[in-house]
Amino acid sequence: MNVIIVAVGSELLTPFHQDTDSLYLTLRLNDLGYDVSEKIIVGDEFENLKRAFQKAREEARMVFVTGGLGPTDDDRTREAVSSVLNRPLEFREEILRTIEERFLRRGKTMPAANRKQAEVIRGAEVLPNPAGTAPGLWIEEEGKIIVLLPGPPPELQSIFETQVRPRLAGRERAFLVRRVLKTSGLTESEVESLIEGLYPRDPALRLTILASPGQIELHVSAFSVVSAAEAERRADALTFELGRCLGPAVFSADGSDLETVVGRLLSGRKETVAVAESCTGGLVSRRLTRIPGSSTYFREGFVTYANQAKIDRLGVPSRTIESFGAVSPETAAAMAEGVRHVADADYGLAVTGIAGPSGGTAEKPVGLVFCAVAGLEATRVERSLFLGDRTRVQDQSSQKVLDMLRRFLEEKSSR
Amino acid sequence: MNVIIVAVGSELLTPFHQDTDSLYLTLRLNDLGYDVSEKIIVGDEFENLKRAFQKAREEARMVFVTGGLGPTDDDRTREAVSSVLNRPLEFREEILRTIEERFLRRGKTMPAANRKQAEVIRGAEVLPNPAGTAPGLWIEEEGKIIVLLPGPPPELQSIFETQVRPRLAGRERAFLVRRVLKTSGLTESEVESLIEGLYPRDPALRLTILASPGQIELHVSAFSVVSAAEAERRADALTFELGRCLGPAVFSADGSDLETVVGRLLSGRKETVAVAESCTGGLVSRRLTRIPGSSTYFREGFVTYANQAKIDRLGVPSRTIESFGAVSPETAAAMAEGVRHVADADYGLAVTGIAGPSGGTAEKPVGLVFCAVAGLEATRVERSLFLGDRTRVQDQSSQKVLDMLRRFLEEKSSR
Repeated sequence: MNVIIVAVGSELLTPFHQDTDSLYLTLRLNDLGYDVSEKIIVGDEFENLKRAFQKAREEARMVFVTGGLGPTDDDRTREAVSSVLNRPLEFREEILRTIEERFLRRGKTMPAANRKQAEVIRGAEVLPNPAGTAPGLWIEEEGKIIVLLPGPPPELQSIFETQVRPRLAGRERAFLVRRVLKTSGLTESEVESLIEGLYPRDPALRLTILASPGQIELHVSAFSVVSAAEAERRADALTFELGRCLGPAVFSADGSDLETVVGRLLSGRKETVAVAESCTGGLVSRRLTRIPGSSTYFREGFVTYANQAKIDRLGVPSRTIESFGAVSPETAAAMAEGVRHVADADYGLAVTGIAGPSGGTAEKPVGLVFCAVAGLEATRVERSLFLGDRTRVQDQSSQKVLDMLRRFLEEKSSR
Repeated sequence: MNVIIVAVGSELLTPFHQDTDSLYLTLRLNDLGYDVSEKIIVGDEFENLKRAFQKAREEARMVFVTGGLGPTDDDRTREAVSSVLNRPLEFREEILRTIEERFLRRGKTMPAANRKQAEVIRGAEVLPNPAGTAPGLWIEEEGKIIVLLPGPPPELQSIFETQVRPRLAGRERAFLVRRVLKTSGLTESEVESLIEGLYPRDPALRLTILASPGQIELHVSAFSVVSAAEAERRADALTFELGRCLGPAVFSADGSDLETVVGRLLSGRKETVAVAESCTGGLVSRRLTRIPGSSTYFREGFVTYANQAKIDRLGVPSRTIESFGAVSPETAAAMAEGVRHVADADYGLAVTGIAGPSGGTAEKPVGLVFCAVAGLEATRVERSLFLGDRTRVQDQSSQKVLDMLRRFLEEKSSR
């Protein structure tokens, strides 16, 4: 049963904003066995909105329309859907009362504009909104399902969880299962040549390769009209073969990102890490501490841009910097060993390099980065020359040093 | 002249990936006076792809199709467009040679699969790709323009800059101008009540409000069929009134983000900052150092999760932590003053709080955060209770402390 998502909002057609609601919806719908076949993003203009909804309704068996249910003049999703379905809007006193009460509880009077949020498309079920004023709407018509949800993520998500999911669970459908393998340390073409011959011919299987800075992902989708178990068997068989070909480059098979995997490895070994960063400016610490529970294994982080800070905080010998420069394998190693010692951690990570756009020389160009991991028994340093702008160099550097720690920990665990 | 962007790729219909090429295209097209009226995101399935392109071609005067020009079997954009336009694909020997040479320069032989990238839709102009193998295609038909571009951002962007922009510049069009005001420290409803009455009735003007954690943005679009100058006058008049109503909550009027504004203020005053973070785990340092040139004003950063680290690195008195706790205005102030002193910076920033999901108590719940800014003459501390998950609390906290520094600097500069 294919789903089309229509995301409404002129801000989503500016260079500055993305529709993120559809990512949440896709994740939840996939879990329930529904596949998203298309996303349409339109502005607030009434005719465009109507046309987009009309197209989606023709082509999908289920349509989600997100956004445009607010109280302001440019919120016109209700009217557009009402017009296309040729079902009038009806005012519901009890919804108005709920909205008024919501304002009253916060000691405020409902602005007159919110009154229109109490209008309901004839025949629609009202999906109460625990997190805001605009209720969602659920319409069934000619075997199709149309769901209208407000755009703010907390509202959309709480209506989905409490109202939409229970209505969808248990309906007849095809079973869809996804697997994601994430790798680091290989280029896209290296991955492709390693898995050559594994591209599925079975139409019930799909394989997509996805490259981002420092990370190549393989997405497997498997369908079955018989059972979830059959779809899972299909997905697992292909995933297993891919994993066998890619070996230690695979760092996760359950969607986890690199910092989550590193955190799990450290927790499992009851070990700790400390971080010294120059060109990544806190990004490595930030990625590690984004993970809930990271305080048990993340000891401490230092952002030491200046040479003197590297000396004072991390105990890097000043002659190391003088002899080899701040961007050198020697300084990277001394930073990693220094932060490990100072913070009394099991592992020290260090990044020093030239993120750009300025600061590069012929000998040490922009993108040159040394990453180091220091443990009790050894210190490893690797040299990379990353392409791209400042952010891209920083992203790839943080990925590199976390991957070095990941491999270090996996090797030790497998011994 | 309205534009529809069709983004092709099954990965863009998974929960894990967004289409980002359209943001770049929108920015560049807006600059040239073109407005994006819709975005359609489809997978690699041939029939879906054809249908999406067909719809876009009917409704837009210009269509950009991004992605699906690669060498693999699931790259079928060329075939789909060829089929809808009813123009055959023609093999071009000279393109093949360019692709082969590209591989040779890297010491490799072209895989046979890449041969199909030398196929061109009849009547299309070839847009050479300086950054990869797949050339773009430019087709004009019945007053409409159709542009096919490869999906990888560096390739798409370099073809746009070198081939598409020169072709578009100078064509007759409506003039579109955008302005963005970014505010912090106000809620969405506070912003709305402050600007009540400024919503434009002129159809050549559009105003959209956009809320994200800790930041409310106002987007103004102004059109003119006469001149760019007229569109600018319209946009500027409304932007000026909005700025007057919102006062010091506005931190930028040129699209700059908060860390860029803070960096500019520090550079202008030739002053420096150092950062001590607990619950934000490096995010504040990371945001500041994301900006090119930040090494001139960013002195140093510390991620001090543990109490002992706050004492050892920042000189927070142990009895302050004992008496008031690590999450307290007293500890926040001591951290900010400490890091200012230790790093010898003009300003010290500090964040301490409970990002969750665990660690909260009845007295100090998840989301409780103290932010502090220490300067030569004063230390300011503010208490916040942020809603949302760990990432959202961290994002809002970093926004809060950067905004405190921004206001501190602006007050000093205006004195």
